[in-house]
Amino acid sequence: MLIVMESRATEEQTEKVIKFIKQKGFDAHVSKGEDHTVIGAVGRKVIDKRDIELLSGVKEVIRITSPYKLVSRVFKPEDTIIELKGVKIGGGNTAMIAGPCSVESYEQVDSTAKKLAGYGVKILRGGAFKPRTSPYAFQGLGEEGLKILREVADKYDMLVTSEVMEVSQIPMFLKYVDILQVGARNMQNFNLLKSLGEIRKPVLLKRGLSAMIEELLMSAEYIMAGGNREVILCERGIRTFEHITRNTLDLSAIPVIQKISHLPIVVDPSHATGLRDKVAPMSKAAIAAGADGLIIEVHNSPDTALCDGAQSLYPEQFAELYEELKALAVVLKKKIC
Amino acid sequence: MLIVMESRATEEQTEKVIKFIKQKGFDAHVSKGEDHTVIGAVGRKVIDKRDIELLSGVKEVIRITSPYKLVSRVFKPEDTIIELKGVKIGGGNTAMIAGPCSVESYEQVDSTAKKLAGYGVKILRGGAFKPRTSPYAFQGLGEEGLKILREVADKYDMLVTSEVMEVSQIPMFLKYVDILQVGARNMQNFNLLKSLGEIRKPVLLKRGLSAMIEELLMSAEYIMAGGNREVILCERGIRTFEHITRNTLDLSAIPVIQKISHLPIVVDPSHATGLRDKVAPMSKAAIAAGADGLIIEVHNSPDTALCDGAQSLYPEQFAELYEELKALAVVLKKKIC
Amino acid sequence: MLIVMESRATEEQTEKVIKFIKQKGFDAHVSKGEDHTVIGAVGRKVIDKRDIELLSGVKEVIRITSPYKLVSRVFKPEDTIIELKGVKIGGGNTAMIAGPCSVESYEQVDSTAKKLAGYGVKILRGGAFKPRTSPYAFQGLGEEGLKILREVADKYDMLVTSEVMEVSQIPMFLKYVDILQVGARNMQNFNLLKSLGEIRKPVLLKRGLSAMIEELLMSAEYIMAGGNREVILCERGIRTFEHITRNTLDLSAIPVIQKISHLPIVVDPSHATGLRDKVAPMSKAAIAAGADGLIIEVHNSPDTALCDGAQSLYPEQFAELYEELKALAVVLKKKIC
Amino acid sequence: MLIVMESRATEEQTEKVIKFIKQKGFDAHVSKGEDHTVIGAVGRKVIDKRDIELLSGVKEVIRITSPYKLVSRVFKPEDTIIELKGVKIGGGNTAMIAGPCSVESYEQVDSTAKKLAGYGVKILRGGAFKPRTSPYAFQGLGEEGLKILREVADKYDMLVTSEVMEVSQIPMFLKYVDILQVGARNMQNFNLLKSLGEIRKPVLLKRGLSAMIEELLMSAEYIMAGGNREVILCERGIRTFEHITRNTLDLSAIPVIQKISHLPIVVDPSHATGLRDKVAPMSKAAIAAGADGLIIEVHNSPDTALCDGAQSLYPEQFAELYEELKALAVVLKKKIC
Repeated sequence: MLIVMESRATEEQTEKVIKFIKQKGFDAHVSKGEDHTVIGAVGRKVIDKRDIELLSGVKEVIRITSPYKLVSRVFKPEDTIIELKGVKIGGGNTAMIAGPCSVESYEQVDSTAKKLAGYGVKILRGGAFKPRTSPYAFQGLGEEGLKILREVADKYDMLVTSEVMEVSQIPMFLKYVDILQVGARNMQNFNLLKSLGEIRKPVLLKRGLSAMIEELLMSAEYIMAGGNREVILCERGIRTFEHITRNTLDLSAIPVIQKISHLPIVVDPSHATGLRDKVAPMSKAAIAAGADGLIIEVHNSPDTALCDGAQSLYPEQFAELYEELKALAVVLKKKIC
Repeated sequence: MLIVMESRATEEQTEKVIKFIKQKGFDAHVSKGEDHTVIGAVGRKVIDKRDIELLSGVKEVIRITSPYKLVSRVFKPEDTIIELKGVKIGGGNTAMIAGPCSVESYEQVDSTAKKLAGYGVKILRGGAFKPRTSPYAFQGLGEEGLKILREVADKYDMLVTSEVMEVSQIPMFLKYVDILQVGARNMQNFNLLKSLGEIRKPVLLKRGLSAMIEELLMSAEYIMAGGNREVILCERGIRTFEHITRNTLDLSAIPVIQKISHLPIVVDPSHATGLRDKVAPMSKAAIAAGADGLIIEVHNSPDTALCDGAQSLYPEQFAELYEELKALAVVLKKKIC
Repeated sequence: MLIVMESRATEEQTEKVIKFIKQKGFDAHVSKGEDHTVIGAVGRKVIDKRDIELLSGVKEVIRITSPYKLVSRVFKPEDTIIELKGVKIGGGNTAMIAGPCSVESYEQVDSTAKKLAGYGVKILRGGAFKPRTSPYAFQGLGEEGLKILREVADKYDMLVTSEVMEVSQIPMFLKYVDILQVGARNMQNFNLLKSLGEIRKPVLLKRGLSAMIEELLMSAEYIMAGGNREVILCERGIRTFEHITRNTLDLSAIPVIQKISHLPIVVDPSHATGLRDKVAPMSKAAIAAGADGLIIEVHNSPDTALCDGAQSLYPEQFAELYEELKALAVVLKKKIC
Repeated sequence: MLIVMESRATEEQTEKVIKFIKQKGFDAHVSKGEDHTVIGAVGRKVIDKRDIELLSGVKEVIRITSPYKLVSRVFKPEDTIIELKGVKIGGGNTAMIAGPCSVESYEQVDSTAKKLAGYGVKILRGGAFKPRTSPYAFQGLGEEGLKILREVADKYDMLVTSEVMEVSQIPMFLKYVDILQVGARNMQNFNLLKSLGEIRKPVLLKRGLSAMIEELLMSAEYIMAGGNREVILCERGIRTFEHITRNTLDLSAIPVIQKISHLPIVVDPSHATGLRDKVAPMSKAAIAAGADGLIIEVHNSPDTALCDGAQSLYPEQFAELYEELKALAVVLKKKIC
């Protein structure tokens, strides 16, 4: 931590700051510049930097150690590769995750999954518990939905991912799903994150609607601090002033995260844009930017979907896009599955 | 719901849209303008408007019924007044809520509360479970903290409010606190909101960091839909590009909410600004804008606080501010307690 | 400038950085911490800090000198008070500026100004050149509008302020107005700012729609660097996700700016909220937060206004508000005129 | 325009609204729904919708005609292709624009352009007038810079684009450059836009830092309304809460704009990200999303650049990226030059 004193700060004020940080358990290294005296506070203690900023004569306090450790490339330089029944995510392996927004019936999931499996998709997505802004909207089939996902996935030899909303639901999810999703609105539900740190299945953590990348990494740190090392990050669009698209997909988050963290980062173009005809261009852009995977909504009959039909691809549209992505992957020297 | 057709839309496209909405259970009223044909879809069904927007020839779909009902002044024109042991919030009654950011010890809470009670404050605040962005930061004393709050509050005849973070904590909170707080990060933790709808104690619901007012009201609707009619809304600053202040206090939310909802709205200037010397001007501004209450951090010894000391007032600063607020209240014809 | 090296940085990398900054004309002070080596770069040169951030081994580069000088309280500790024909703005003097959004006719301005002058208002506002997002909307009366403003103001012994949009308009404005306004959309029109630095009349500079306070101050610095020391800052609402109000009025900008700058700061509640019934609560809040003035839209007949009628007060509403503000000013120990 | 009445609105209130809009020159079509009466206001007049929203009984007023005309695909369904000395932009033709951030000397521009021309680049960029937030930073070489650009471009048979900041500079720019750029900070400098409408050279218009797509299109409408039909739009990143990247590149703007407008849209990954190592992934993503061109900063010696060196590519890095982009273009069935 660096403490920059005001140019007008007195000797006495500087002494008081040094005394203060020593009391808090830090060592102080003083360096006098032309304009400003800078105090380096060295130590392992946690302190709210604003407490120092309020001392008289202090201009600014600058934290120099990263708040995250386990998620950082400094801690683990090589890419984390999540591997599940032969399917790999991360380290040059691009995973395709597809399926309907929400589970509506066995027939719906079965007919969608059959096609997806036929195209080569290995991971099936589907919502059983739905976070809806209105208490009067369809809230999902609950456990029945998870059962359907598992049954269909087993039939076509696929993996399952679905969103968990509450600590008490975790044991139920462990019975049915392979990857537990945390939705954008729960990115800072710290109790949920802590509990997910105690399990030993991968967690797909979505970036919050107005979260900075550092906050996403801190939430991943919560999970990893509990001992669960298998976290997949997910960029799904952030809230901006633009409202033609539902959210703004921040694709630069991909190279940014890949530089500072070893965790894989996948992209959800369906929720980010909210409109079917924007899913294909944004999927291609995500792959070109280096994403480790895509999570795309596909519905056997989007026009009758109970939720988010407007952003779901028809299976045939998805098939066509998937072929284009494979062609791009060849040029980009990536494996896609 | 109004469906605006493109100026180039064909007769056939319009017919197809009418057929579609009739299938979904709506009546259709068509009105042909100079440029655009507009279809009014009348009915009580819930439909994702984007499903219609994707039909060919459709320019725009406009929802005209408010998504919230119970929180609206249309539903209940007169102000909701929350009354607890003689203390009133709302309808011209301005409540003062004060106390430390987090409970650290019996002595700390006792010495702070003694002073606050002496000044006339009736509601004590304090955090026992703390939502921290870092898993390595102080996370609160837990149930022990709630016990301390209750004990001290009873000693000085005060009410208690504290933040609940998880569904499973609710029964514990009901034993100790009078008003349950929902923090900004949990504003859209829908499972928590639903469970709080089932209790019969007031809930103080904080606006999310990047939530729009309508979303705050929808979250309140979740609680009210469960049967709990005692919701206090709280403006605590929203995230903006400005970073000299921690967040930007949106005081215009006060008159906006007071027009469309009957629920009381209080303001938290401590978290909004994050700095002690901005708390007094923002408190005065909130009262002048018509706030139904304030929630202010006060600590017996801010310099040694384990959390947010930098934004906590010294008891003497608080006392001085409280007097100024009372003088303002007289001019503004409001009661403050 | 402080350069923080990565914890894994080699001795060689540190040497390279030191060599680099010395080449750029800085002195280097090295301080080795437990985790990080920090290099203090001391000197007066301007350098893009990202150039250093790209050197290998560098974790972060931190600028510690403020980018502004003349606007800062370090440069001039006492409040700047703008004085024009006996009217003062700043240093405890709160100025009321009022008038129609745009000048439509002599009769309109005359009838509005007559009432305002009667209430005690000393500064008349009105737009002659209007920045409109659509090329097809009313663009103002131009020079004819300025003439009307001047004539009416002289009749009632008032001062005039109006918005200048272009460098080439400055000589014309100098003939008619007492305070030149720069609109939010021109806050970073640097050529305009430079030219306004060369005149010797006060400039009222509005904060840009998504400008940070530091950027507003930098724009004021442009004007002051040219030699014009009379700048009045204006908070007029920033763009946020909320869209019930047109913009979000950031009242915490008032105490923030008053701490770091000596310049007066006034508030425009009309443009910030965009709705007449929000102007009164926000005006009272602004005064309570310590604003040095208000700029309020008043129209003799808002229902027929060519521009922004919806946010203009009726003269009688304004009169009532003005009385309330005077009562508040007494409690707050401020002078208002 | 559609006027939705409150569910509680009286017959009398509805009548008053109808009378009001008829006075303003509109026809009224009334349609009574179950909950709400909706009034369609048909006509060509311009009216501020907030004036109607303030009438009693009115719930909401909805504008249904687009504010822009000439930029819209409704007006001109086929893609606009800008053609300059055989170089095409738009309609499947992807243009590469490259060069240094600012012109520093003849040698610098010459040595950079020589390499770029060798790689096949046809359009040279470079800043002669620089919009800098600090009045104390390097402001560009001015006309001398434009002369250098022209001379070097002619030597290597290239086109030139450079940023114009002020109305009075336009005649000078017409002498030297082929495409006039408008920077993000001037996107709503309406006087500048109007003047650019009167020239007959292409204008490259950058999206403002917090501008919505509709606002960008309205600014393009200003230029086109003056008679200049050759506008190239440019996405260069928007301001968001994320600050690891300088701005957030909104690549979904590409398919969004291509649907509603016929104008070409190019992407500036250098300013958007602000860091050299993010330029390559974002350039590839932009092409994959369908961009009609790229504008990339390349400097013969970024380490000594006077401006933005940190985001400039080395010529060799650019050459490598260019080859990758050409390979991608083949897969995407686009022409790049």
